[in-house]
Amino acid sequence: MRVRTLQPDDRFRLESLLSASVNFTAEEVGTALEVIDEALEGDPDYLVNVLETDDAEVAGFECHGPVPLTIGTFDLYWIAVDPRVQNRGFGRVLLRAAENDVRSREGRLLLIETSSQPGYAATIGFYERNGYALEARIRDFYRVGDDKLIFAKSLVPGVD
Amino acid sequence: MRVRTLQPDDRFRLESLLSASVNFTAEEVGTALEVIDEALEGDPDYLVNVLETDDAEVAGFECHGPVPLTIGTFDLYWIAVDPRVQNRGFGRVLLRAAENDVRSREGRLLLIETSSQPGYAATIGFYERNGYALEARIRDFYRVGDDKLIFAKSLVPGVD
Repeated sequence: MRVRTLQPDDRFRLESLLSASVNFTAEEVGTALEVIDEALEGDPDYLVNVLETDDAEVAGFECHGPVPLTIGTFDLYWIAVDPRVQNRGFGRVLLRAAENDVRSREGRLLLIETSSQPGYAATIGFYERNGYALEARIRDFYRVGDDKLIFAKSLVPGVD
Repeated sequence: MRVRTLQPDDRFRLESLLSASVNFTAEEVGTALEVIDEALEGDPDYLVNVLETDDAEVAGFECHGPVPLTIGTFDLYWIAVDPRVQNRGFGRVLLRAAENDVRSREGRLLLIETSSQPGYAATIGFYERNGYALEARIRDFYRVGDDKLIFAKSLVPGVD
């Protein structure tokens, strides 16, 4: 298993991986692909890492980037692992890759936004196990009854 | 005085208006101009209204838009009034124009992000007088000691 940066050939594989994830709507898959395309075009606001298994299969990816008008704050925009290979720690490896990249760019705060809907409980548990704490909630953000939760982790050097 | 939609001729005037505002850094002015350019190119994510005085001077503008992946949530990205004509209620007129446009697009929630720094106290007072309440805070968002405050107003028809 290894983590590497995004390559043009990955796009098709990432599209099928996103489409296979029950947690993403068609609109969300479209938004994720737009971000992947921006990253492939070299947009420095979107940084993508891909996780490859030992047999060179792309099993997941994450996308993060600096938040404009901040000093040292980054967003984790997407993280997804192929449903067929979940529960093997691949998500954790991708998350660590994002955190290390943020630290290498003098980032100090990594934010992750997610939904309060029950379908995201496992995702939220994953973030909490990896040191993220609920920082803020915007009620009815996605739709009435579906809040936006913002999780945060301090990445000050030496803390983790 | 009247509120009208953005026209290409406004760009130069808005640039000088933004540059004259003590609350905006050079980076923020650049970001606002990028958004104005997107709006001029017809990007439906950025909707801009301009306030014109009776002698056809552009005295302020606001920019709002739908938040992707939400149903009915909008962001107020920018609102600015020429420092020479402040305290005449122009900000309120622009804010109402944004709210009415959001309602006309079946929007139900308008969010405004701002900084916790003392220089924004007057801005925050303006939002609060106009029905916005602090919904969430992200500590150290802009930089250490400078939080992001997210104000929200419900725009459900009939509420206001």
